[in-house]
Amino acid sequence: MNLRIGIIGTGAIGGFYGLMLARAGHDVHFLLRSEYPAVVENGLRLNSQVYGELSLAPVNAYDDAARMPPCDWLLVGAKTTSNASLAPLIAQAAARGARVLLLQNGLAVEDELRALLPDHLHLLGGLCFICVHRSAPGIVEHQAFGAVNIGYHSGPATDEPARQTIVEEGVELFRSAELGSNAMPSLEHARWQKLVWNIPYNGLSVLLDSGTRAIMDNPDSRALVAELMEEVVAGAKACGHSLPPNIIGAMLASTDAMPDYLPSMYHDFAQHRPLELGAIYAAPLEAARTAGRELPKIEALYRALRFIDARNQAR
Amino acid sequence: MNLRIGIIGTGAIGGFYGLMLARAGHDVHFLLRSEYPAVVENGLRLNSQVYGELSLAPVNAYDDAARMPPCDWLLVGAKTTSNASLAPLIAQAAARGARVLLLQNGLAVEDELRALLPDHLHLLGGLCFICVHRSAPGIVEHQAFGAVNIGYHSGPATDEPARQTIVEEGVELFRSAELGSNAMPSLEHARWQKLVWNIPYNGLSVLLDSGTRAIMDNPDSRALVAELMEEVVAGAKACGHSLPPNIIGAMLASTDAMPDYLPSMYHDFAQHRPLELGAIYAAPLEAARTAGRELPKIEALYRALRFIDARNQAR
Repeated sequence: MNLRIGIIGTGAIGGFYGLMLARAGHDVHFLLRSEYPAVVENGLRLNSQVYGELSLAPVNAYDDAARMPPCDWLLVGAKTTSNASLAPLIAQAAARGARVLLLQNGLAVEDELRALLPDHLHLLGGLCFICVHRSAPGIVEHQAFGAVNIGYHSGPATDEPARQTIVEEGVELFRSAELGSNAMPSLEHARWQKLVWNIPYNGLSVLLDSGTRAIMDNPDSRALVAELMEEVVAGAKACGHSLPPNIIGAMLASTDAMPDYLPSMYHDFAQHRPLELGAIYAAPLEAARTAGRELPKIEALYRALRFIDARNQAR
Repeated sequence: MNLRIGIIGTGAIGGFYGLMLARAGHDVHFLLRSEYPAVVENGLRLNSQVYGELSLAPVNAYDDAARMPPCDWLLVGAKTTSNASLAPLIAQAAARGARVLLLQNGLAVEDELRALLPDHLHLLGGLCFICVHRSAPGIVEHQAFGAVNIGYHSGPATDEPARQTIVEEGVELFRSAELGSNAMPSLEHARWQKLVWNIPYNGLSVLLDSGTRAIMDNPDSRALVAELMEEVVAGAKACGHSLPPNIIGAMLASTDAMPDYLPSMYHDFAQHRPLELGAIYAAPLEAARTAGRELPKIEALYRALRFIDARNQAR
């Protein structure tokens, strides 16, 4: 099964997965913006502490979605802050009945895009468990992990078996590239579960100007991480999602075991890009509030980050 | 009524009040540490946007409390983080039955010192409403305000009329120097009330690297200030202190009316001095918790500040 895959937004996430899928023999096409000239000239490079040094050249690179061949799967690695503007590009690059997979964190990130996509497209969400960042145009640094868990959001597959078939096709796609992947029965459940990690570490890395190691080593910031996680679990529960009882201990332990890591929000801040505060903070706060649950520590963190983001954009 | 006054800790607060009291004709003696040589050589200077430029030279300056004459009032403007080490110096500089006035923010700042002071000394707390900072050794910049509200903590005055007499003596002392001053029936009540300002602005100035103006102008940080204030009011209430119903609106309005201001904690951070997190955060959190009330946003702020303070001390 060789599929034609389009990568929309070739940053760290799009670059990593596109390169790994091309290496596995899939026909991968990359849509780029500012990095287009560099990638045409130098190709894509992955410096991975897991897979070694990989490179791809020449690259099927495009600066115009209209020139892309019709793709079976479209992997969206762009920031949630630009989802609305991606809809026309996705529609141009998609084969009829294509699967659009948002490789993004946060809650409800599919909703805005769904309303702007043609009905024939399947929309799925993917949760990436990966430590990766972009160090230069076309160059991706991969520290650890790489699994993608997939759930169906909306589209022409209206019954559960049809949805499962499409999700399993995605799972097989990533497994064919030596990457872990699991089908998620509930995408919203999976998104809440992922937020248990993202809400504390993404925000605190910016607020405290710190990687995960120093945050875990200081007893106060470590306690704050755990308390923020407890609020995420409480918010998920209020919204009907009972997360595994040991999830906080497991996430703390796996972060302890990780190399020192700067989450994506830290890199966005350092590059003066907009922070993904809507998807990672505002949407879960709003969902929990609607369900009758306040999350005060997350709200305090969110407000502080909004201040920092506004100043960072203005500079 | 000319009193002999000793200033213990001649930073911004000690320098300002000592200079104002000397200007009013009182006999003021200053205990200094690192700034002793500069003050002996150049005197003390106050650049005040209210009172103009004032200077005092020569100064009754000491680097050894044992050489000070016995003082009727001792004004302690040192940081709460050094209170325990001040007790022997205070005892050396105090006349019998002297009044020791802690010009400090936070809760329970007198408790540790009281246990170390001789029984014949009266201990009082003073809440300073002032925008002031030290710009160089012996030089104090005064932006606005200056009132000191005073309450009795502990000592030989065991009945209420005797305590009132001593508090009124302090009130008259500051009024004689053209400074506002009021007697506070309950020192703990007054301390909680002052925390309504200190808890949001001191911490957020460090966390957000910002003066009051930018914090008030951004809707998110402004809302966070108000929410932190609501938690202080709730903590005070749990501890038996009903603060005025309009206090939050009044504090926001008076901060709006102030010039842009960097609170003392910001200056402590910038100078790599220990932050007064025990008096301003840990003690109120502990008091509220003991009374059955969690203050989650204040706790999140406190934990973040503890991380920042630990790193700042290590650098």
